[in-house]
Amino acid sequence: MKLRLSCLYTLTKEVSEKLVYPILKDASEVLERGAPPGEGAKIVGKSLSKDKLTVVIESGTYVRPHDAAFRLKNFLSQKLGKEHHVGVKEIVGKLYEIIFDVPATPSEEVKLPYAKSISFKGKTCTLILEDVSEEFLQKNTVDRMISLIKEKVEFQQYGTREEHHKIIYEGSTKPMHFTEDPSQELINRKWVKRTPHRNQFIFGPQITELAEAVKRAYVDVIYKPLGFVEMMFPKIVDWSIWKKSGHARALYHGGFNPYLFITPKTADPKAWEEVCDKIKITGEIPSEDIMDLLEPPRGGLAFAQCPPFWTYLEGETVASESLPIKVFDWSGPTYRYESGGAHGFERVDELHRIETLWVGSPDQVQEINLELREKFRVLMEEVLELNIRQALVTPWFMEQKGVLDESVEGGAGTVDYEAILPYNGSWLEVQNCSNNGDSYPKAFNAKAQKGELASGCAGGSFERYLSAFLAQKGFDPENWPKKFRKYITVIPEDVKFL
Amino acid sequence: MKLRLSCLYTLTKEVSEKLVYPILKDASEVLERGAPPGEGAKIVGKSLSKDKLTVVIESGTYVRPHDAAFRLKNFLSQKLGKEHHVGVKEIVGKLYEIIFDVPATPSEEVKLPYAKSISFKGKTCTLILEDVSEEFLQKNTVDRMISLIKEKVEFQQYGTREEHHKIIYEGSTKPMHFTEDPSQELINRKWVKRTPHRNQFIFGPQITELAEAVKRAYVDVIYKPLGFVEMMFPKIVDWSIWKKSGHARALYHGGFNPYLFITPKTADPKAWEEVCDKIKITGEIPSEDIMDLLEPPRGGLAFAQCPPFWTYLEGETVASESLPIKVFDWSGPTYRYESGGAHGFERVDELHRIETLWVGSPDQVQEINLELREKFRVLMEEVLELNIRQALVTPWFMEQKGVLDESVEGGAGTVDYEAILPYNGSWLEVQNCSNNGDSYPKAFNAKAQKGELASGCAGGSFERYLSAFLAQKGFDPENWPKKFRKYITVIPEDVKFL
Repeated sequence: MKLRLSCLYTLTKEVSEKLVYPILKDASEVLERGAPPGEGAKIVGKSLSKDKLTVVIESGTYVRPHDAAFRLKNFLSQKLGKEHHVGVKEIVGKLYEIIFDVPATPSEEVKLPYAKSISFKGKTCTLILEDVSEEFLQKNTVDRMISLIKEKVEFQQYGTREEHHKIIYEGSTKPMHFTEDPSQELINRKWVKRTPHRNQFIFGPQITELAEAVKRAYVDVIYKPLGFVEMMFPKIVDWSIWKKSGHARALYHGGFNPYLFITPKTADPKAWEEVCDKIKITGEIPSEDIMDLLEPPRGGLAFAQCPPFWTYLEGETVASESLPIKVFDWSGPTYRYESGGAHGFERVDELHRIETLWVGSPDQVQEINLELREKFRVLMEEVLELNIRQALVTPWFMEQKGVLDESVEGGAGTVDYEAILPYNGSWLEVQNCSNNGDSYPKAFNAKAQKGELASGCAGGSFERYLSAFLAQKGFDPENWPKKFRKYITVIPEDVKFL
Repeated sequence: MKLRLSCLYTLTKEVSEKLVYPILKDASEVLERGAPPGEGAKIVGKSLSKDKLTVVIESGTYVRPHDAAFRLKNFLSQKLGKEHHVGVKEIVGKLYEIIFDVPATPSEEVKLPYAKSISFKGKTCTLILEDVSEEFLQKNTVDRMISLIKEKVEFQQYGTREEHHKIIYEGSTKPMHFTEDPSQELINRKWVKRTPHRNQFIFGPQITELAEAVKRAYVDVIYKPLGFVEMMFPKIVDWSIWKKSGHARALYHGGFNPYLFITPKTADPKAWEEVCDKIKITGEIPSEDIMDLLEPPRGGLAFAQCPPFWTYLEGETVASESLPIKVFDWSGPTYRYESGGAHGFERVDELHRIETLWVGSPDQVQEINLELREKFRVLMEEVLELNIRQALVTPWFMEQKGVLDESVEGGAGTVDYEAILPYNGSWLEVQNCSNNGDSYPKAFNAKAQKGELASGCAGGSFERYLSAFLAQKGFDPENWPKKFRKYITVIPEDVKFL
């Protein structure tokens, strides 16, 4: 790696070469501090015009020129300030040339915001930045740009990694009583009805009672025996949370397709009078006018449920006696902007998820993980009597970090529970269960009184459980397993429409 | 009322005055049809230049000139088409002058989109439109503009009507055990915690158990005895629903301050690559860039719960045997962009509402309304032992329609249930119960097999019930009424933070 920064210092007064050049010479010790002998940053060029001092700094792996530029600023301020009452007003990185190796020869152009140019000779990349601000230099932005170029070159080489998916369990065969698409039958019976919005349904009383029965089974089979208690997690999520959880950096990438929420610049009726007048006169929403009256989005609708939970523990140190924390949430729907993949009731934009979340020492977390994995199997195979399989997959956050760990028994990893849909022969993911290691506690600065803090989470949805159940068992309650029927109070009579 | 429209007809070919003027003369019968003799629309001027025919049409209350313009178009097409193969290509309202009386002399300027000018002489308004399109003329937009001007003048006169609020019931005195602000105590105990988003809380296990106890009490006291069953209503709402319910026309007016949702123009990762790169490099969300990649909002987050229910019955005719329909929904939070009024846990942007909704004949609806009103009283006074009062108020949709009806017993109207907050002496609205008459079935084209269809709805929230309860009874379960305590399983132990 070779870095070369041409840095312009604007001083508070005009100075002479005679005054300032010797100071630059004396600065060499400061610029090399912390690096092996001879490998620190070096001044390789300089020029002065009135109050404008240009210094060219070079370095390799040790002491980045942008760090060196600030060391030099302090040194200059110190030397010029006391005796000569001259300060440094501003630094601008006029030209920053960064040469480094990438993992492969790129197969196509690499683009990056803030870069003047990015070019390659074989596996050697030259990144040029121009006129970068003091703040930009200070925030170590350059290192993040280098990482991102390497990431992009690697992505060109390997593309999106195939999701790691290994079958680790095949359930025993259970009776199946239906061969049709359950979504169609749900719609025919008016147990659900499509709304004017894409991939959204309203749940009639009959399907709602079945969802409630799934809740009762969940509590009875999983939550009560394992000591999980209910919480209500927020369902709109401030950007700051997705920044910490890592979701923000994958906005509309790799499956993170959220709905965003948006609020007015002002709710003063006067500001909205013209829009309302137009609606009153035409009966239509003047979309373009509305956009001008809205703030940029402040965040999104809950996508997965667990990131907004972490507000609860953020910045806290949890007493040992309160660990492990075992909670669940089903207090509201989550949203995914589904593209081609949306289908019927089993893949919707408005999804009613069931979140199971636990926090404790790494050992506690893994123990609960294994207990839950068995309980989910019991719920699916013994209560709902579903034909299922389990697969080991790479959790999303690990994909993002480039980690791939097959040894779920020993640490982080995700197990998916899939049920077969007889009507089309495909497997539907109904539930997952993940040990997330220390990623969330680290991201949200949550600590244990003693030792490490880790967490796990598991997600299911009423739509998926019921789609799988009805696809395999059909709509005749006589064909439903007794162990599940006991959780159903009474299925309300169908509302009759003419 | 006096209306005068100068209308430009563009014909498909040049014609002569000799051909077209006699046809205009013959049209007089068509233009007067349906009006008392002499009071229909009249042609008071005409001119022709090649293929451009200008006709000036005047009328009073009967046969609006914009209707007359289309009658004339048809007449012209008929007379010119057959014999001369000339058609009418386009109509433009070049100048439309509308003179009408308003309820009062306006005290300030009245503005309206699409109006060239609006002027007054005393109580007489002259509205001028210029260059209005065929579509604009056809949609009866002019009548909606006249109504809106009258409404605005009336508003100048009377301002926002004071909410009609009449105490109709004062409950008996119940013991109170607390004088502090319960929100503060909830935060101190970490039963709730503020999130990074405005007026939003995460519910810890303890407050969630209390919310669940309120649910159990609701089911036991109200829903089970009265035969209400659960549904799951959508929680994002397409504009088309708010257009029908009438909410859209009051966007950010009169308390309708919704959150809107917004989705990307495309979820193609390529389109979002630059935004993601910026987030990865700077760690910040580039708000302005994001706005360019988003569609205008397609609707909002649920505000009240009941409008999106109506998808279920929209366009349907409900069989007599299925009436009345009695349902409830607590499947997710609703959102209000609260301004100055937001305070602690009792007034939040993310609110967990409880919606009770019933549909039937007007008699069924009113009978259920009265039953519910008594049950809500029992829940509040006998189970939660709250100090309450009831007030008769004007429901929102009636305010919009300008209706004010004191005789709730006989028809539409709303009763509010308010509980006193000892810490500041104010009354908090905890629950309401409304007979909404036929407004929703009409708006959503829902019909009964026989007779009229009407509906009612009632809203409460866990936040409000619990704020009132904790404000009056405090946090020592010993002071909580036995009839409520039986619905609490176990309050989970406080999580201990260091």
